[in-house]
Amino acid sequence: MDRRSVLKKTLTAGAAAGAATIAAPAISQGKMEWRMVTTWPKNFPGLGVGAENLAKRITTMSGGRLTVKVYSAGEMVPPLQALDAVINGTAEMSHGAAYYWQNKNPGLSFFTGVPYGMTSREFTAWVRFLGGQEIWDEIYDQFGVQGFLSGDTGTQAGGWFRKELKGLEDIKGLRFRTPGLGGQVWQKLGASVTNLAAGEIFQALQTGTLDAAEFVGPYNDLALGFYQIAKNYYFPSFIEPGLATEAVVNKSKYKALPADLQEIVRTACQAEYDNVSSDMFANDPRALKTLVEKHGVKTHQFPDSILEAGAKASAEVIGAVRDGDNALAKKTAESFISALALLRTRSESTDSPYIRAREKYFKI
Amino acid sequence: MDRRSVLKKTLTAGAAAGAATIAAPAISQGKMEWRMVTTWPKNFPGLGVGAENLAKRITTMSGGRLTVKVYSAGEMVPPLQALDAVINGTAEMSHGAAYYWQNKNPGLSFFTGVPYGMTSREFTAWVRFLGGQEIWDEIYDQFGVQGFLSGDTGTQAGGWFRKELKGLEDIKGLRFRTPGLGGQVWQKLGASVTNLAAGEIFQALQTGTLDAAEFVGPYNDLALGFYQIAKNYYFPSFIEPGLATEAVVNKSKYKALPADLQEIVRTACQAEYDNVSSDMFANDPRALKTLVEKHGVKTHQFPDSILEAGAKASAEVIGAVRDGDNALAKKTAESFISALALLRTRSESTDSPYIRAREKYFKI
Repeated sequence: MDRRSVLKKTLTAGAAAGAATIAAPAISQGKMEWRMVTTWPKNFPGLGVGAENLAKRITTMSGGRLTVKVYSAGEMVPPLQALDAVINGTAEMSHGAAYYWQNKNPGLSFFTGVPYGMTSREFTAWVRFLGGQEIWDEIYDQFGVQGFLSGDTGTQAGGWFRKELKGLEDIKGLRFRTPGLGGQVWQKLGASVTNLAAGEIFQALQTGTLDAAEFVGPYNDLALGFYQIAKNYYFPSFIEPGLATEAVVNKSKYKALPADLQEIVRTACQAEYDNVSSDMFANDPRALKTLVEKHGVKTHQFPDSILEAGAKASAEVIGAVRDGDNALAKKTAESFISALALLRTRSESTDSPYIRAREKYFKI
Repeated sequence: MDRRSVLKKTLTAGAAAGAATIAAPAISQGKMEWRMVTTWPKNFPGLGVGAENLAKRITTMSGGRLTVKVYSAGEMVPPLQALDAVINGTAEMSHGAAYYWQNKNPGLSFFTGVPYGMTSREFTAWVRFLGGQEIWDEIYDQFGVQGFLSGDTGTQAGGWFRKELKGLEDIKGLRFRTPGLGGQVWQKLGASVTNLAAGEIFQALQTGTLDAAEFVGPYNDLALGFYQIAKNYYFPSFIEPGLATEAVVNKSKYKALPADLQEIVRTACQAEYDNVSSDMFANDPRALKTLVEKHGVKTHQFPDSILEAGAKASAEVIGAVRDGDNALAKKTAESFISALALLRTRSESTDSPYIRAREKYFKI
């Protein structure tokens, strides 16, 4: 996934713009303006568009009483300072991904997605009905903010590779671009992992600095042109089975809203979660069709040896958070693991067998 | 799925109450009250609770300017007259499932779910991003109403059977309770299909009038006690891979709302779609644990011969709508089939392989 990197790209722009040059929100005739800082470049497909739509929904539903103005990455603050901007009140709201802030608490990774973790439907079941939101609130309470889910990529693509992967031996020393906990997993598999900004990946592949790279999925990857260099596109991403975005609001400002506006913010986030997830699900296969039919991309499934070693490495990476000394991160990991143990039984006994049966037998 | 049957159960109550005894909505100081008639009994888990939550969201977000009052099945009109009540203005809004109204247009089945059709995520991708909503609007425009998705059961369970199913020969003459297009599929497989009301199934199983029955999934089925008679619980339901509920509003009343209230209704439905889907996904496996561990239920996968014959029969049932003489139904089926062809490539190459890899290799 690219987000952390995409962010870095706009750090300079962010520093140049600076928070001080942005006017304070207008409050007149009972009307408020909230500033939503995001971690996305302007018009970023799926996720960034979700931030724009969320702002529009809140603005429209409130009849303009709460107008939300979106600032793309770097426009007001550098992208990786988006959460801090909400904490210190420079902005009222942010849109990004919780795992960007894992340095504040390692448990936050679980509210975006972790290697060999939950699919998007399992994830909302955990967050909304099996205690996930409550633990997330406990973590964010320490910083005076409130998080809401606001979108999801669904299960991502596994990456672009110059050469076919026959087994684990093809990963040894492979210079692979992938960030975060997933990067730790690939490192355990023997890859030499680096995290380049989205805009730098293509050139690094072209000059041979990188052997392979993963970003998001077909919808986002098509635009970056990786297919021109690496023709082998692998599925699925076992390190990113469904990554959620978040909307975060300053808690005291949220609590100061009247009940109708509070519900408008909460409900708008939940509706937009569904919308972004549907957008990605509709547009990924369309983009993949283009990649295969127009650009000669070859799709592959990862060999079993890689999937198996990846699972072992992922359990170690997740286990390290669970067994670490941060009490809330430990609590998060334990709740996640226990909910996953329950929810995967449904996916494995009902959803996956259905898709397999349809794949095998249903033609129309 | 039980809904059509559940409805019938309350027909008498509905007739007794009658629309005329309910006061017209109060309109004072710019405040409106909308009546939402539903096809669900009071406190019906998941789906009925979704109707209640939807009404609360709209009422709260509008600051009470648009109060929605929920009438359970039969309280105001008989459940199977819910849509007619919205068409003729007796109610402003209904909550149910589009396939109840397939006698108005056979295309409407596709906006709930069809045998061997879409999973819930594929379904929202089609409705929201691949033209589904537009066709649905075209159908409902004829009746002066507007439909919104409002919830989903996810992939259901396949049913309760007294005896294990070894193959197609065990279906011949089997007296099986299952409604709608799915019932047509089972009939093609050789079953003797009947559609009993939810409250009648248990007794019919007990007295031997029925050999087997399917309802929804563990969350709803547990309450009805079928496990006391039929111990074999089959997965997945290939006839009901993900059934959506709808909220329908009278179109002229919807268009007369100011823009903020229109957006509040639309967004509340989309948020509640996500909420009901998450609720079902969290509570199905909990209920199944209880069924297996406390009640000695044995879970099974359908044998391949049944899955295969079911796929062939489903293609015939769907094909009959596509090749029928109703132009809008034909258009619906064609759009659905073409979107499914695209979307299943994502499910089959990304989502399903991920769940399989995790099932096989990931232990924590």
